[in-house]
Amino acid sequence: MSTTADPVKIAVLGCGTVGTEVVRLLLTQAEDLAARVGAGIELAGVYVRDTSVPRDPVVPVGALTSDADALVDGADVVVELMGGIEPARTLILRALNRGAAVVTANKALLAERGAELYEAADAAGADLYYEAAVAGAIPLVRPVRESLAGDTVTRILGIVNGTTNYVLDEMTSKGLSYDEVVAEAQRLGYAEADPTADVGGHDAAAKAAILASLAFHQRVGLDDVYCEGITAITPDDIQAATETGRVIKLLAVAERTDTGVSVRVHPTLVPVDHPLAGVRGAFNAVFVEAEAAGELMFYGQGAGGLPTASAVLGDIVSVARHQANGGKGPLESNYASHEVLPMDAALTRYAVRMSVPDRPGTLAAVASIFAAHGVGIESVRQMAGKGHAGLILSTHRAYEAALRATVEELRDTDAVKDVWSVLRIEGEL
Amino acid sequence: MSTTADPVKIAVLGCGTVGTEVVRLLLTQAEDLAARVGAGIELAGVYVRDTSVPRDPVVPVGALTSDADALVDGADVVVELMGGIEPARTLILRALNRGAAVVTANKALLAERGAELYEAADAAGADLYYEAAVAGAIPLVRPVRESLAGDTVTRILGIVNGTTNYVLDEMTSKGLSYDEVVAEAQRLGYAEADPTADVGGHDAAAKAAILASLAFHQRVGLDDVYCEGITAITPDDIQAATETGRVIKLLAVAERTDTGVSVRVHPTLVPVDHPLAGVRGAFNAVFVEAEAAGELMFYGQGAGGLPTASAVLGDIVSVARHQANGGKGPLESNYASHEVLPMDAALTRYAVRMSVPDRPGTLAAVASIFAAHGVGIESVRQMAGKGHAGLILSTHRAYEAALRATVEELRDTDAVKDVWSVLRIEGEL
Repeated sequence: MSTTADPVKIAVLGCGTVGTEVVRLLLTQAEDLAARVGAGIELAGVYVRDTSVPRDPVVPVGALTSDADALVDGADVVVELMGGIEPARTLILRALNRGAAVVTANKALLAERGAELYEAADAAGADLYYEAAVAGAIPLVRPVRESLAGDTVTRILGIVNGTTNYVLDEMTSKGLSYDEVVAEAQRLGYAEADPTADVGGHDAAAKAAILASLAFHQRVGLDDVYCEGITAITPDDIQAATETGRVIKLLAVAERTDTGVSVRVHPTLVPVDHPLAGVRGAFNAVFVEAEAAGELMFYGQGAGGLPTASAVLGDIVSVARHQANGGKGPLESNYASHEVLPMDAALTRYAVRMSVPDRPGTLAAVASIFAAHGVGIESVRQMAGKGHAGLILSTHRAYEAALRATVEELRDTDAVKDVWSVLRIEGEL
Repeated sequence: MSTTADPVKIAVLGCGTVGTEVVRLLLTQAEDLAARVGAGIELAGVYVRDTSVPRDPVVPVGALTSDADALVDGADVVVELMGGIEPARTLILRALNRGAAVVTANKALLAERGAELYEAADAAGADLYYEAAVAGAIPLVRPVRESLAGDTVTRILGIVNGTTNYVLDEMTSKGLSYDEVVAEAQRLGYAEADPTADVGGHDAAAKAAILASLAFHQRVGLDDVYCEGITAITPDDIQAATETGRVIKLLAVAERTDTGVSVRVHPTLVPVDHPLAGVRGAFNAVFVEAEAAGELMFYGQGAGGLPTASAVLGDIVSVARHQANGGKGPLESNYASHEVLPMDAALTRYAVRMSVPDRPGTLAAVASIFAAHGVGIESVRQMAGKGHAGLILSTHRAYEAALRATVEELRDTDAVKDVWSVLRIEGEL
């Protein structure tokens, strides 16, 4: 393949785990990459705040610079791996406004300020690629935007946070409590010292916003995402799920209905025979339903320096190829504008686990409360207890508002001693 | 989005299940497709051998033509959905030589004559897209060629034939014999009256050739693929697999080693906790191992009119967009030329199930035969029998030639009464 064109100049912003792996791959695979791009690839420089801090020896000392503006201004492709909102946002906008292509793995920035970045890219006719921001190494942007370009995505269910998947997995397989598993995960380095961003669902919420934007050709921001974490999940919840043939997963859900688009993150009951149920440990998976293609699932590592670097490199090759050919890539803009629905308007199902007095007429009283709110009951399961009965009621699909009002009334009535837990159900027929 | 460019003229060759669904989607989604292409889409015509045969009413009678040459010569994009080698091959070459883009779902043609077609496309600078030929609706071409463009694929394990996956699944879950399940599958329409192409592994072999070409940037033809079907699998094999924590799947395997590329199809023992083990019924899945990305899996429907049409439409949108912009797409050619290894040089593992006399020294005699061929034993499992003992020996990874020679000698020695079955193992550490 001829590589007579001018080399494409790549600027890398940030030199953490992912940045280091990206630099390593760029330098060690240079020849192969050049063949795929159709032009040489040149590392223009690596921006770091402090050039005196020692780095992995794979990063050439001469490539380090603390002058981000000059680096961006001399590059054809800017690879943003700093994370955080600023200065990442300003530098990306600076690159796009110059017509340089941008590759980013920054999910927080895309979820919070994506609209501004997409607009700048459109206005400048510049590429903005972000495969690594969605689900680490798992290819999703090209499959959803290009392979399904003649199809309509109706729903996405994603396990997009490895820490929470690991915690729920350990709780399920070892019967441990949430606190025990999180402490062990912190000891092993699988969970952060402050795990809030993971266990509170915020990391998953940022990815849900990006997934929804991708699937529905629509700008969905972090503020549009309803978010509930896994901190309240108890061993009893896990056991009840197992007994009813389900597992608990923290899911990012993005759904298109007749009235709009619903985007949410919450612990979810999934049937054990659903493809998402078998996704173990730190792996991620995104389940996509499309009108013509039917059910698809994409599975792989959602984090880690090397897997994430793989996704970044794929994007670099794509945009560098466009730069070498003087063009912009085929990733289209977000042209749709469905209403983003509030959580009350989400259509979902509940499994309500409660204790009721062990006396005749209880089930009738409970059932009438569901009926009064127009919520259909799909199944009832009784579990024996001392002086009371445990009940798990699974509902048909209903509006979240109706389901909530039902649970409110259950908490108030004498027919129910205690509502132990309320979990949403996805993936059942 | 502006659509002022000339409409892109689409010719559809063939009007079976997939062709009809493609026409339906082209006509009903015309406006949305135009927005994604950046130009109008026009159905130039549908080639059928006999225009007098009644068709689904979605296909406009006026669009039908039996003059394939004239249709091809007037089209910007030719969609080949006829199947078989001729006249599909000649018409595709005619289109490519004119510089028209081609989208095909024809796996047999690609596996047998792919080299000729890729060369014609390269020579003419024309697009040749074939997502639907690999694994139906499952997006694989873009993820492997573009998302992993900065990575190196080392191995692919694919469940790429729904009929055999259904048969093995039913044998496993219901304890039925191969003949019983195939008869039932034929009755239900899940298996053809003559199921040879499926159960003999030939359909999977064609897809293995395409997958290997895709993953290793290499021309791999049907003749390069070692192929073994599922007709010899017995309920005893299934039961022994279950007892050792494995399931039997018909896998397409494409592997890159230091010495070359190995491509094969055979029934395979897979650990129950491997992501491929949970792929049920008529679903397909392709498990990809890459150096940086690690383990990825792509799951979905591998056949069916509507799912296949989804993949075809995705390709049509891509190539039509290139046509509207006067260019060729980014799918690169096959530039690598690793040696394609004969089956004897494949590195794999065996599980050998045999009956041995119930007397001291038997295991030592058996083990020494493995040792003599340099084949390491990973585990031995004994099963009680009447007057004899059943043994399952699982080996370490070794060359197929050494494994075969070992089994030959086991069949000849007095230390073994009978070798019941020999199955390869993949997906274990």
